[in-house]
Amino acid sequence: MGESVKKSIALALLLIGTAAMADEGMWLFNRPPRDLLRQRYNFDPSQAWLDHLQKASVRFNNGGSGSFVSSDGLILTNHHVGLDCLQKLSSAARDYVATGFHAKTRAEEVKCVDLELNVLMSIEDVTQRVKAAVTPEMKSADAQRARRAVMNTIEKESLDKTGLRSDVVTLYQGGEYHLYRYKKYTDVRLVFAPEVAVAFFGGDPDNFEYPRYDLDICVFRAYENGKAVKADNYLRFNADGPKDSDLVFVSGHPGRTNRLNTVEHLQFFRDYTYPFTLNFLRRREVLLNTYAERSAENDRRAHDEQFGIKNSRKAYIGRIAGLQNPAIMKKKADAEAALRQKVTSDPQLNAQYGDAWQMVHNAFETYRPFMTEFRFLEGSVAFNSHLFGIARTLVRLGDESQKPNADRLREFRESNLESLKQQLYSEAPIYNDLETVTLGDSLAHWMESVGADNPLVRQALAERSPNDLASDLVRGTKLKDVAERKRLGDGGKSVIDASNDPMIRLARLVDPRSRELRKNYETNVDEPLTQAYAKIANASFKTMSGDSYPDATFTLRLSFGTVKGYVENGAQIPWSTTMAGTFEHAAEHKNKEPFDLPKSWTAKKAAINGTTPFNFVSTPDIIGGNSGSPVVNRAGEFVGIIFDGNLESLPWDYQFDDRVGRAIAVDSAAILEALRKIYAADNVVSELTGK
Amino acid sequence: MGESVKKSIALALLLIGTAAMADEGMWLFNRPPRDLLRQRYNFDPSQAWLDHLQKASVRFNNGGSGSFVSSDGLILTNHHVGLDCLQKLSSAARDYVATGFHAKTRAEEVKCVDLELNVLMSIEDVTQRVKAAVTPEMKSADAQRARRAVMNTIEKESLDKTGLRSDVVTLYQGGEYHLYRYKKYTDVRLVFAPEVAVAFFGGDPDNFEYPRYDLDICVFRAYENGKAVKADNYLRFNADGPKDSDLVFVSGHPGRTNRLNTVEHLQFFRDYTYPFTLNFLRRREVLLNTYAERSAENDRRAHDEQFGIKNSRKAYIGRIAGLQNPAIMKKKADAEAALRQKVTSDPQLNAQYGDAWQMVHNAFETYRPFMTEFRFLEGSVAFNSHLFGIARTLVRLGDESQKPNADRLREFRESNLESLKQQLYSEAPIYNDLETVTLGDSLAHWMESVGADNPLVRQALAERSPNDLASDLVRGTKLKDVAERKRLGDGGKSVIDASNDPMIRLARLVDPRSRELRKNYETNVDEPLTQAYAKIANASFKTMSGDSYPDATFTLRLSFGTVKGYVENGAQIPWSTTMAGTFEHAAEHKNKEPFDLPKSWTAKKAAINGTTPFNFVSTPDIIGGNSGSPVVNRAGEFVGIIFDGNLESLPWDYQFDDRVGRAIAVDSAAILEALRKIYAADNVVSELTGK
Repeated sequence: MGESVKKSIALALLLIGTAAMADEGMWLFNRPPRDLLRQRYNFDPSQAWLDHLQKASVRFNNGGSGSFVSSDGLILTNHHVGLDCLQKLSSAARDYVATGFHAKTRAEEVKCVDLELNVLMSIEDVTQRVKAAVTPEMKSADAQRARRAVMNTIEKESLDKTGLRSDVVTLYQGGEYHLYRYKKYTDVRLVFAPEVAVAFFGGDPDNFEYPRYDLDICVFRAYENGKAVKADNYLRFNADGPKDSDLVFVSGHPGRTNRLNTVEHLQFFRDYTYPFTLNFLRRREVLLNTYAERSAENDRRAHDEQFGIKNSRKAYIGRIAGLQNPAIMKKKADAEAALRQKVTSDPQLNAQYGDAWQMVHNAFETYRPFMTEFRFLEGSVAFNSHLFGIARTLVRLGDESQKPNADRLREFRESNLESLKQQLYSEAPIYNDLETVTLGDSLAHWMESVGADNPLVRQALAERSPNDLASDLVRGTKLKDVAERKRLGDGGKSVIDASNDPMIRLARLVDPRSRELRKNYETNVDEPLTQAYAKIANASFKTMSGDSYPDATFTLRLSFGTVKGYVENGAQIPWSTTMAGTFEHAAEHKNKEPFDLPKSWTAKKAAINGTTPFNFVSTPDIIGGNSGSPVVNRAGEFVGIIFDGNLESLPWDYQFDDRVGRAIAVDSAAILEALRKIYAADNVVSELTGK
Repeated sequence: MGESVKKSIALALLLIGTAAMADEGMWLFNRPPRDLLRQRYNFDPSQAWLDHLQKASVRFNNGGSGSFVSSDGLILTNHHVGLDCLQKLSSAARDYVATGFHAKTRAEEVKCVDLELNVLMSIEDVTQRVKAAVTPEMKSADAQRARRAVMNTIEKESLDKTGLRSDVVTLYQGGEYHLYRYKKYTDVRLVFAPEVAVAFFGGDPDNFEYPRYDLDICVFRAYENGKAVKADNYLRFNADGPKDSDLVFVSGHPGRTNRLNTVEHLQFFRDYTYPFTLNFLRRREVLLNTYAERSAENDRRAHDEQFGIKNSRKAYIGRIAGLQNPAIMKKKADAEAALRQKVTSDPQLNAQYGDAWQMVHNAFETYRPFMTEFRFLEGSVAFNSHLFGIARTLVRLGDESQKPNADRLREFRESNLESLKQQLYSEAPIYNDLETVTLGDSLAHWMESVGADNPLVRQALAERSPNDLASDLVRGTKLKDVAERKRLGDGGKSVIDASNDPMIRLARLVDPRSRELRKNYETNVDEPLTQAYAKIANASFKTMSGDSYPDATFTLRLSFGTVKGYVENGAQIPWSTTMAGTFEHAAEHKNKEPFDLPKSWTAKKAAINGTTPFNFVSTPDIIGGNSGSPVVNRAGEFVGIIFDGNLESLPWDYQFDDRVGRAIAVDSAAILEALRKIYAADNVVSELTGK
């Protein structure tokens, strides 16, 4: 075989690290995989096709994806993405999570408390300008400061010029920088949600599993100036769904992958980062279980957070299990050795990039001794409380707004203040009892981990137990009152400094050390890693041919693949389940929670066409954050909505493999069937089908 | 006030560490608190009264207490003590845990799989002989070996002489040694159990809480030579239960307390021991939850272990919360300072005992660096598997039985072999799927904690992931087969050494390091602690007057106190709940699990006398292991059965306080009412009441 083919296999092994023909890749919209699509699928998307899909795609800033599906601004996402809004709109008397929701008219649509949606309008490559700000002779701290300054400045200039939300996105871990401009929506109203019992049918046991039977959808509508948005770009709703072997695309916002990571970086995840994370996730899961079990109202209050924790726990267990598998690690090690071999064997490459792996090594050697304290303080693991989060944001807002934009911590940059205040001044309910329980336990966790004699622990506790301190803080603070938050936040540094609020005082007490740790992390860990990975990325570019994509960054990406089943333990798992299968699955589990279908479903069992495909699997490359992404066909029509990956997809975090790994979606046909037959949501159906 | 009164208050503060008049104490039956009982309650128990209660008391060797309640060997204990037997007798088709059990005739009584009961027949003080074996000039390792040798020997001699199970019990952490001789029962049959839904009504949320509504009882019968045991000593069943303010006694087997511990020892618990324990308990809880939720059968299989883990987790959280409370620690510190002051101010005492606290300090300094590895390997935290436990016991049985009795590890001493084999050759079901899940996760936990590059981890895994290794081991081992265990265990060292069973091989692989850690622990931690605490105990004896009791050792103790309610957050909590209250409590929680009463109860609601006292609280000093202990009145009659302590009693581990701490019991009146009206268990009622 010729050299270029060999190179392309090497590329597949290295950047992709898996079988050569896998449908890997979370591609940039400004750098679509045209060659691959043409070669493999004989498909050549027009620029209009791409632009349309890009602008029909919606980012949910609470961590998910979605898409416009009608000219009147109707947006489809997952129930578990909409859950944050449903939870914040609910109360003991009115629980939209449990009962679902259906607005039969525009007047009945309910505004979400603090949701922000983004639609990507343009991408501009600003790599040169960002890189130019950092010179090779700069020390780490200066380099970090200079890069932050130029990014804050570019964003501010863009915001002033265009009025659009403007974010400089770090791609290829520092290999490139692109400026993303978003149209922003903050008046988002709830139109329809099924009951959580069917949206998350099978609960934690079925999460990340397949076959699956979930109506994991939620319908919103974007408004502007009190009127429904007229969407120029929305996806036509295909009423039939996809067929087996169809080429499909996923346009969404994968949150984070670690595929470019060195082996040593992954080992650090395996040995330190993930065990730490799983430890506090399990601790919080047990805590929330015990809180939720005490009463139905507790269960309701904790629902969203409980879901999030269990979901993360299951995902992290899948990820660490992959890293604990020597076969997976060997693949990564072999690919790394191949690249390093290419670099060392070329004197010029070696001079430029040869020290990158050692830099990664050094960064983690530096990080390890302060990781625990860093995550407890700056990562807020010690302060599991919404009220503390508010207090910290206020304290820092006071300090940061005094500084020139270029010098501010990234989240306080001018161009981000509106979004930050949207969250800070949210009217989302806060429950004193739940706050006390979670804060008390996280303070105890901190005490147990850094030691009872840690000076900051002692100062914070001031001779109280962690539970007593939490109780004092939650009872004493006034920050539940949004007016008080606005008084402080809009009052500026002097007003905040004058506050004697106990939660503010705690945030103020830990802030110097917390900032110190952050600075240490940014200067001595993050900055060297950024520089090292820029080298590794460049080494890859220079030694490999063919297209490549950067690790996920919670920005818009295009994936592609095929609708298809797989073989597991010798059994063929079909590409799709059926709506009839849902009732069988419930019966197998004696209809016991979380396998208990809501009454709306059991009552309409006979009315449903049981053969309707319900959930289906396909091979596009996804990860957390893709939840709610539209699945579209060659015609750019909506044929389904991504809501999960199977267990075998969890190691996609660092290595894609579609032999058995799959994305899981709700079929558009099932969405229509359920809306029509079960929920009689004729208004939604008409709008979706344009009839 | 006179000197003796002052001294006795000082004693109260030091050994007891709480309000002077508290009903503290887990008293030895050969050293009952006659003075206290006479002074406070004008009660002077006769030796016959004491002997009768002692011999009517039963130890459940799986970790609980009970008592004979009929002349035909009927034994009452808690459901959660009997649970181990219920679980082992159950299968997918026949779930005694869920449905309960009722043998209407002797013929229907079912033999427990591997239960051993002990009845204490005599106590002999062997302190002199044990202490004489250890001389002051001995090095730690020699002292430890000499003490173990003399204990093993005393027990063997006693067994040979009396035929009774003979255990040398270390009291006052090494201050004294008493030889306990037990009548042993291994043919124990199940007579009656209610459904777990009412035995553990309220589940984890209500566990350690009060008010409470649990029918936490289980009825067994002891057999010998195929016939029901004729019990000379059994408790008369009082049909009316106790009244408010009654003096009551508890005779049972408190498992472990830490009241003599130095402050530094408690700090070690707070900072290292308990966080480690809670970490793996939470991890196992999450793991078992996810396993159990997958199906009804999984839920059944995991039930007993799940209960045990949640129960421990809640208890340890209560304990660590107490240690994280500076007010509690200050009390301990003040009492310790007072004793040390007495010791240092007396040159002779100081010469004998003054170095004890430094010895405790040194022991923990030594222990800390190897605690994690010790607990993973020798503590088996790395190997959460019944099959591994069997493999390790077999490997060590082979090695230890070669040695003279005096030199053996304690659990392999001659006098214990029969009990050890009762467990080793148990026919209790083992589930491959559950074993694989728990072993895989514990291996991963080990890998995460000691490092993926730990040589033993690498050798054990042999290039497999923890989950793959667990799967290989469980599929490959033959140890599920009891005949194979007997072949190995009875075959002796050469047969065991020749085994190629993969689980045996793993046990063999880790054994040298595990034994090394154990030896290090026994020589350099346990031995110095034993010597140090013998000094502290003796310093206390010499500086204080009045009676004292040793920390709990899972041996028979007598506690006393008063039936009484308490005040919590300003509200008066009554001494007893009622059976009618049970239905109200269920209704408040919408009858949702774990607040769902079984059909037997809802069907008979009208038939029950709702005013019958159900659960009641009293002040006797108890701790885990006391579960199932009879509560008796002055007349020595059975008026209730201990099944729990409230949350406020959890710090009793290291400090008794009965201002709000309480023991919780099922009222004898409710037991009768339920057996008669709900379960129509007329045969049991007749036997209990003698009618």
